Amino acid sequence: MAVKRYKKEDIVTYCLGATVSMEYLNIRPEAVTQVYLHSAFYESETKEKILKICKERHIPCDVNDKAFQILSQKENCFVIAMIKKYTSELDRDASHVVLVNPGNSGNAGTIIRSAAGFGVTDIAIIRPGVDFFDPKVIRASMGALARIRFKYYDSWEEYEKTDGAGNRHFYPFMLDGSTLLHETKIEKPFSLIMGNEATGLPASFAKVGCPVRIEHTNNIDSLNLPIATSIGLYEATKDGFGE
Amino acid sequence: MAVKRYKKEDIVTYCLGATVSMEYLNIRPEAVTQVYLHSAFYESETKEKILKICKERHIPCDVNDKAFQILSQKENCFVIAMIKKYTSELDRDASHVVLVNPGNSGNAGTIIRSAAGFGVTDIAIIRPGVDFFDPKVIRASMGALARIRFKYYDSWEEYEKTDGAGNRHFYPFMLDGSTLLHETKIEKPFSLIMGNEATGLPASFAKVGCPVRIEHTNNIDSLNLPIATSIGLYEATKDGFGE
Repeated sequence: MAVKRYKKEDIVTYCLGATVSMEYLNIRPEAVTQVYLHSAFYESETKEKILKICKERHIPCDVNDKAFQILSQKENCFVIAMIKKYTSELDRDASHVVLVNPGNSGNAGTIIRSAAGFGVTDIAIIRPGVDFFDPKVIRASMGALARIRFKYYDSWEEYEKTDGAGNRHFYPFMLDGSTLLHETKIEKPFSLIMGNEATGLPASFAKVGCPVRIEHTNNIDSLNLPIATSIGLYEATKDGFGE
Repeated sequence: MAVKRYKKEDIVTYCLGATVSMEYLNIRPEAVTQVYLHSAFYESETKEKILKICKERHIPCDVNDKAFQILSQKENCFVIAMIKKYTSELDRDASHVVLVNPGNSGNAGTIIRSAAGFGVTDIAIIRPGVDFFDPKVIRASMGALARIRFKYYDSWEEYEKTDGAGNRHFYPFMLDGSTLLHETKIEKPFSLIMGNEATGLPASFAKVGCPVRIEHTNNIDSLNLPIATSIGLYEATKDGFGE
């Protein structure tokens, strides 16, 4: 397959960088269809590991500097893994992060990394929202995208009726949330619901579950989205990462 | 003064964007020496406010599209404020964030925004560290740099002997910190001490104050630096932003 700049409608995407590629090779090797190495990639333990996995899994692994010119502007990128896109179903018994109209790919990646870190490996995205398979998202997640399940929904109602149904506790994060996060007992399984970077959640979420707010001074308008999400995840999992 | 691309040794720096510029015009107008407007800047309440402050403060305010070509690649940037660099002294009685060798300007800006948000407005930077006056830092802080005091130190020891001296509680954040953050009572005034993005804090910090760790699963190697710092700030100020 010819290498070309990523577009949302493509059936493949790319991991840019050795760390990111290694996550996919370790966690979801079945999704990796091709690995490109840069001719300047130095001999290292990482290189040996990549070659070993590719050999065992019969994944083509070639030196191809042109692929790097097309796909990566970063100087320190020596490995690219091509990923065949896949779909996943959320675990209906597990806790979720729900992103309503996320707008920024770097933020999405940072949220994925934090969610994986706090053991919440199911993410619902309400459209419109950034493309989780964008190489910028995968890179910002440090490859943690490989460790989570994610699914798109056309509306909040669609999520609520399907994977969000059942015995589940909703916590929309709102600047005017009725209770303070640190005074709220977060019950499992939970759905932490986060709005768009610029506009937050629609006012209608004030009637969904238990709206919470993270107290901050009026020095700032709001916390950055991955920060607010990660503080929520930290608070919700401090008694343990399990059910 | 001619407009040129920012360099660390320059005596001026730039706020890129209306929101960021407004923070400086509102909070530190005495530091603003010039405002540039793009000819495509639409009539708006923000534009009126900018013109009003500039007039009152006798700050030159000119349409200058060339300045935008030189200083900003972003499409949605219509205002640039030129800032004369200033120095500040930390408040020795207040709580601090201490960044040991911070490496990334976007991360530094996000940390500044969170620190301002949680009312911790004194930041110590141990060299080498990113230039807080870099326009990328100011922009990532959303202009919150105007609201904080910050100072550079050549070593941890220099900070510890001067602005870090006295009745102060040190909390180095380390992956192998001896106590869990959420089980640690953070006493005020505190210094939350954060290491470099790639390398963390040197092992010698295990003997400084009360080393803490934020528990996460082994899905990830570590949390991203602004995330870890902000979770620390959230936990340390949840009982109130004052002394």
